[in-house]
Amino acid sequence: MSYIDLNYKPSENDLICRFFVEPEGNSAIEKACENIAAESSIGTWTELSTMESEIYERLGPHVFEIDTASGEVLIAYPSDLFEPGNIPEILSSIAGNIFGMKAVENLRLLDVEFPEKLARSFLGPRFGISGVREVLGVFDRPLVGTIIKPKLGLNSEKHAHVAYESWVGGCDIVKDDENLTNQDFNPFRERILKTLGMRNKAEEETGEKKIYMPNISAETEEMLERAEFVKENGGRYVMVDIVTVGFSALQTLRKENLGMVIHAHRAMHAAFTRNKKHGISMLVLAKLSRLIGVDQLHIGTAVGKMEGPREEVVEIKNAIVGDWYGLKNTFPVSSGGLHPGMIPALVEIMGEDVIIQAGGGVHGHSNGTKAGAMAMRQALNAAMQAIPLEEYAEKNPELKAALDKWGKP
Amino acid sequence: MSYIDLNYKPSENDLICRFFVEPEGNSAIEKACENIAAESSIGTWTELSTMESEIYERLGPHVFEIDTASGEVLIAYPSDLFEPGNIPEILSSIAGNIFGMKAVENLRLLDVEFPEKLARSFLGPRFGISGVREVLGVFDRPLVGTIIKPKLGLNSEKHAHVAYESWVGGCDIVKDDENLTNQDFNPFRERILKTLGMRNKAEEETGEKKIYMPNISAETEEMLERAEFVKENGGRYVMVDIVTVGFSALQTLRKENLGMVIHAHRAMHAAFTRNKKHGISMLVLAKLSRLIGVDQLHIGTAVGKMEGPREEVVEIKNAIVGDWYGLKNTFPVSSGGLHPGMIPALVEIMGEDVIIQAGGGVHGHSNGTKAGAMAMRQALNAAMQAIPLEEYAEKNPELKAALDKWGKP
Repeated sequence: MSYIDLNYKPSENDLICRFFVEPEGNSAIEKACENIAAESSIGTWTELSTMESEIYERLGPHVFEIDTASGEVLIAYPSDLFEPGNIPEILSSIAGNIFGMKAVENLRLLDVEFPEKLARSFLGPRFGISGVREVLGVFDRPLVGTIIKPKLGLNSEKHAHVAYESWVGGCDIVKDDENLTNQDFNPFRERILKTLGMRNKAEEETGEKKIYMPNISAETEEMLERAEFVKENGGRYVMVDIVTVGFSALQTLRKENLGMVIHAHRAMHAAFTRNKKHGISMLVLAKLSRLIGVDQLHIGTAVGKMEGPREEVVEIKNAIVGDWYGLKNTFPVSSGGLHPGMIPALVEIMGEDVIIQAGGGVHGHSNGTKAGAMAMRQALNAAMQAIPLEEYAEKNPELKAALDKWGKP
Repeated sequence: MSYIDLNYKPSENDLICRFFVEPEGNSAIEKACENIAAESSIGTWTELSTMESEIYERLGPHVFEIDTASGEVLIAYPSDLFEPGNIPEILSSIAGNIFGMKAVENLRLLDVEFPEKLARSFLGPRFGISGVREVLGVFDRPLVGTIIKPKLGLNSEKHAHVAYESWVGGCDIVKDDENLTNQDFNPFRERILKTLGMRNKAEEETGEKKIYMPNISAETEEMLERAEFVKENGGRYVMVDIVTVGFSALQTLRKENLGMVIHAHRAMHAAFTRNKKHGISMLVLAKLSRLIGVDQLHIGTAVGKMEGPREEVVEIKNAIVGDWYGLKNTFPVSSGGLHPGMIPALVEIMGEDVIIQAGGGVHGHSNGTKAGAMAMRQALNAAMQAIPLEEYAEKNPELKAALDKWGKP
């Protein structure tokens, strides 16, 4: 009973996985492929008395391409293997036990092509890029956001004050950091009330729409209650740590559909996405996130404090913004070690449809948060008008101070 | 503002992480440690105008041990940094962005010591080993289970029939596989009804308690509905893919406390636990699972088709069965490529408190499932009486056939 068929032509109902495969020891890649295909679908390590040829014919996967030079392998799985609308089930098949098999030394799920039938069993984003732009009323430039810093430690009042300074300085968006939820030094409900209050004030003063993205990550029911609380108090957004919260709860949040934009932070992803030979690619995580329906997703910066090369970030961006069976798209977010000096390069890489977030790059400004936010917006203005930052900085002292502190990479 | 203090003595309220750290390029490990400590708590990549010395004093972490030879580092975090009862929040801190930082080439969270205050903010298992043994009425030997194989493809009726054969052959436990949930070829509700029906029949015929562990992995609310359905129909157990479902939903399942034993499958864990230099150890995942409150957890086999050396499996076992602030313990499960010939070695490694599961090692038996289950139970009987398998096989033809097919490793 073999799963390798290099003459197989995938059908439109197949789900196709691209793996990098490094077989154990000196064994052939074909042997590893047989093991991967079996374990991720209908088989196991030994012949079964309970197997039926009809099952093998109807549900058996097909390894239809093996590139021995690169170690890249394509496997087609009939979509009937999977439960529609159930991300955990799909991952337990194509990204489950196989990573722990002795038959492989390393194994990486590089990409997944979902058949339309399966893709459309998910909700996808409710807002997408155009919906987010409608909420903000900003249509012709990247959005600028900040993360309140220090990540942890400010009390609710100070948190709200720093948010206010960020908004009036020019940020569209203020978000909590990934590890701030409901700690004693800054309780969730108090923070929401105070920060949304300051948002209203900032909107009045600037005449711009302003966004607060509170981190609601928690046990599912608690998370939903927090989302309800945000909504009741005039919030339009929630943010969630999609990896540490997990796929079932993320699906629940989207399903409950509270009418708020969902911002997805990816803390912990690099535990399994970073090694180029093993684990799961960020591209796959991004596709899953769009299927489930997050409206905004951190995908990397190509510049900044986090690793992730430019080509990879662009590939992920294209996957979440392009057409995909009529699903709405997801707004790419670049965040992590950014500062004003990086904005032109970032806009050049990402285009206009990107949310640029800087935490340290705003609150680390020599003249404080408001000046930092002003510098970010100034850098964006310069980039949009194709004016060199140094030139634009001549008449914009906040930008000048930022460039003086952090330079231009 | 430094986080390194090699004279620091951790307090009983500190959460302590043991990391393996490989700094980027030629930079010093101390520099990487500063970055890790900052990013996982209150800091970022630059000095902040909004930081206050009071926050640094009260919430700052302490890197208090750096072993440059092994790359192992200990960091103590004040427990006030974390939200009690919120696993996603804790992971977004100590296992979040840090894995993606350019400042490290590789980073692995090897172990976490939870302070009592934080550990006791979680429910822990409802049953634990003694509770599970009460349910089954088996107190003096390992439990024997099987996974219905083929993993996918059997219809509900055949699924129930294979389960029945397994029980009457001698298995205590029958479980669904990790990727079987609610597919068209075997719908969840139909499977539950038929399989629990056959469980009742098997209990009557054998006079033993029998367990069925249905895989309820799905979006959170759907998962809870499935659990309710199992309970309403006389089920005593649910199983869940804890990694692909995720921590928030797992906490919800435990919180809802339906009075059923929770069996935890770990599909996908090896995407981040396998590489010895990067990611998160299985030991950490096991501790988190016990905190949340799974009653049974797959921890490896030390023998069989999955990688994971003996010392590591024993370390994990000790972490989930030992005393821990009064939390109940978790029953270790060994599953993956096992067959009767491996049982004596496994019992020698794991002791009596282990659940031994074989899928292929039961249903791959030359004479079918029932004979395969008999062979498993015979091998266990032999091991418990310290009789060599070959000797015991002389009077037990099912065991003999299994040894003839698969040998004794």
